Amino acid sequence: MKNFFFEKAKNITVNDLLQKLSLKKLKKNFKINDIKELDTAEKHDISFFHSKKYSDSIKSTNSKIVITNKKLKNIIPKHIKIIEVENVILSVSLVTSLFYPSALDDTFDKNVKLIDIKNFINLKVGNNVLVGKNVKIGKNCSIGHNTLIESKVRIGNNCNIGNNVIIKNSIIGNYTNILDGAILGKKGFGFFPSKKNIRYPHVGALIIGNNVEIGCNNTIDRGSLSNTVIGDGTFLDNQVHVAHNVKIGKNCIITGQVGFAGSSFIGNKVMIGGQSGISGHLRIGDNVQIAGGSGVIKDIPSNSKVMGYPAKNIKEFLKENR
Amino acid sequence: MKNFFFEKAKNITVNDLLQKLSLKKLKKNFKINDIKELDTAEKHDISFFHSKKYSDSIKSTNSKIVITNKKLKNIIPKHIKIIEVENVILSVSLVTSLFYPSALDDTFDKNVKLIDIKNFINLKVGNNVLVGKNVKIGKNCSIGHNTLIESKVRIGNNCNIGNNVIIKNSIIGNYTNILDGAILGKKGFGFFPSKKNIRYPHVGALIIGNNVEIGCNNTIDRGSLSNTVIGDGTFLDNQVHVAHNVKIGKNCIITGQVGFAGSSFIGNKVMIGGQSGISGHLRIGDNVQIAGGSGVIKDIPSNSKVMGYPAKNIKEFLKENR
Amino acid sequence: MKNFFFEKAKNITVNDLLQKLSLKKLKKNFKINDIKELDTAEKHDISFFHSKKYSDSIKSTNSKIVITNKKLKNIIPKHIKIIEVENVILSVSLVTSLFYPSALDDTFDKNVKLIDIKNFINLKVGNNVLVGKNVKIGKNCSIGHNTLIESKVRIGNNCNIGNNVIIKNSIIGNYTNILDGAILGKKGFGFFPSKKNIRYPHVGALIIGNNVEIGCNNTIDRGSLSNTVIGDGTFLDNQVHVAHNVKIGKNCIITGQVGFAGSSFIGNKVMIGGQSGISGHLRIGDNVQIAGGSGVIKDIPSNSKVMGYPAKNIKEFLKENR
Repeated sequence: MKNFFFEKAKNITVNDLLQKLSLKKLKKNFKINDIKELDTAEKHDISFFHSKKYSDSIKSTNSKIVITNKKLKNIIPKHIKIIEVENVILSVSLVTSLFYPSALDDTFDKNVKLIDIKNFINLKVGNNVLVGKNVKIGKNCSIGHNTLIESKVRIGNNCNIGNNVIIKNSIIGNYTNILDGAILGKKGFGFFPSKKNIRYPHVGALIIGNNVEIGCNNTIDRGSLSNTVIGDGTFLDNQVHVAHNVKIGKNCIITGQVGFAGSSFIGNKVMIGGQSGISGHLRIGDNVQIAGGSGVIKDIPSNSKVMGYPAKNIKEFLKENR
Repeated sequence: MKNFFFEKAKNITVNDLLQKLSLKKLKKNFKINDIKELDTAEKHDISFFHSKKYSDSIKSTNSKIVITNKKLKNIIPKHIKIIEVENVILSVSLVTSLFYPSALDDTFDKNVKLIDIKNFINLKVGNNVLVGKNVKIGKNCSIGHNTLIESKVRIGNNCNIGNNVIIKNSIIGNYTNILDGAILGKKGFGFFPSKKNIRYPHVGALIIGNNVEIGCNNTIDRGSLSNTVIGDGTFLDNQVHVAHNVKIGKNCIITGQVGFAGSSFIGNKVMIGGQSGISGHLRIGDNVQIAGGSGVIKDIPSNSKVMGYPAKNIKEFLKENR
Repeated sequence: MKNFFFEKAKNITVNDLLQKLSLKKLKKNFKINDIKELDTAEKHDISFFHSKKYSDSIKSTNSKIVITNKKLKNIIPKHIKIIEVENVILSVSLVTSLFYPSALDDTFDKNVKLIDIKNFINLKVGNNVLVGKNVKIGKNCSIGHNTLIESKVRIGNNCNIGNNVIIKNSIIGNYTNILDGAILGKKGFGFFPSKKNIRYPHVGALIIGNNVEIGCNNTIDRGSLSNTVIGDGTFLDNQVHVAHNVKIGKNCIITGQVGFAGSSFIGNKVMIGGQSGISGHLRIGDNVQIAGGSGVIKDIPSNSKVMGYPAKNIKEFLKENR
């Protein structure tokens, strides 16, 4: 999906990048289109390789130029040009801010105004509904009191948005309900710890599918480079927290106070009991059932039922804890 | 307590029900007044029996007609007429929507207006306070800025409602405080998973007693068929989540980030430490103390102290985890 | 830091206190300036000693008059005058309400008005921003839509406050961001359980340093007698709960849904993973790393890495739970 939330700088060259990273320029300069993750990068995009977890992706990527470090560079196929740095993620952050100079500004949207329902088809709105520029809202939607929809957000048909909701940098499908107090699309909790923490640009979006329900007081952050995704038919209960880049599949049931750390991938028809936590960068298969209160710290294959902290086979857990 | 939040359809007969459930009509038709749980049903109400957990209730119910399945029907006393279905809860949902056709609409209240304090006795209100139709608010109350009180809500005397609060389908006693950002009385997280999840009508209310405190950013859902109840003198800290049908007794202390799954019953003078989770359909006795971080997955008798996940006797837990 | 949020009663004498506590008056009356904790009390302040945990503080305090009970009074140095009571904390509460008669009123601020940016330097504000009396906001700040800043709050330079934020009784440094939906400075969850719970006056403030980030829907309570403190450079993710009197050091990273019970002390450069809980009255050293989902119930020395519930050495925990 094309990223239309952040304006991309044009005519960035590899030597602009190298300068930003305080590295030696190349003799033969060339243009770079964008920065993307390995799996989504196209041939004129730069990408990055910062963990062996992505060894499959580095083999199949379309990118021809990759930021990496000394330790990992030998795994990279020969046809890919390497930019070697000390701290891959910090360098990616610098390059991202070169492409998206406005992405670090996460202050409130100054372009919002009281909504005018005449601009939309059969829209019902409450009091004090604020809407930004270039917002698209489909037909037959409702938006509750004191809700704020920032510029460029897209909402499909037949959606119900509750009261006190805040939506930014998000694309929402059809027949989806967003309940009271949800905060969607804020930048993720990504930064480089230092004396004065360096904030990381989050240029990804939050993509929510069709027939989804997002519970009260949920906080769902947008992606950093890729998107955060909530699949069709997935329902989230109250007080759920979804960090940046998390991808939740279709027809999942996520009960109250569940939390997802960044970049985890959740399959389809996954059921997660209340207050469970899913660590970052994990892969949870399809049809997985996670009992309430579990702490998941490693990948879970499809069709498993787990429980406990750390989560393990539910039968084993219950036997050990009779 | 009479349910005045949802308009009940009149003149519903048993054959209307059977038609809705795609079952054969009876030769001798008769009127049915309402659908209720076994313990609260009166003689002209239909009820349902979906789990052996409710074996005591099926023996003592006043209902004379009950929805159940093949497996459970033999336990039901002979004088009760049986409607046998495959999926009891789905059938209950269909029957409920027949009695309460508007209960599935959980969009924002279109009848709210800026509050006029002249309609109330010694009421203090902040900016942008919205109030629905037929709201009752007792004397000497205060309501903070940007708070929304939907139609038919009842609030007693000497209550303080904070800022950014949302209240719907709720009845609140006297001397009760609702703190900033709390969201009360939304429909519960109940639905039937399918390709396009079928939402469940929640016609219950949220009943909050006297001298109660509800913390900031709490989410307390209303009941489905019965009510969600918070007893007199019970205090809830911030970020607590209470699911539908939960009944919390008197003088309980519920600390931060605790979560209750649906339909659990909590006794009086129960103390629950921070971040504990209580599974659904449990019975916690009086004077129970649950240490912070516990995960309670089975009933707890009165006067127990428990800790751990799953929660067990606190001395045993601490001995094992020294 | 001088407490300017609550007006202190003047000319309180020791006999006023004794009368409030229903104790016999002294023949030789004298003035008392304030009530403070042992470590911050000066020589004309009264203090209190309610737990052996504070045995070091009772030896070094500057206070010359202390409320305590029969069990603890023998530990107190001879030069300190003792007021012996049955319930120390309840007595402290009564004395506090004598000094700060208005501190129990935690209803909404009736003095707020729509903000006038002309009173501030280069301030950007959204719609419906409400601000109380005597609020100080530094230069180059932004405040999002529907945000409420109560009387006497102080915000430094170059701060960004999000949408739907509520701030009271707080002092905020420079270059600090408060994200959407955060609720800062409400009274803590402190009271004396009884038939009608007796609320405890919370006269402390919430002090937030420079370069801090407070996540969406955080709830951070102000202190009771001392302050709640968030140190310079500390970042909090979404849905974090910080109870009264907690002191978090500098450059800490607190991820989503973490909860802190009251009065714990967290060192510098502490990293806490998602959903972890920290019990009350604990001391966590510097550079401590606490893995996600942990439940910390005892002090942790500096430079430790812990995990589990209850939290223990991370290597040990992972070995036991392979």
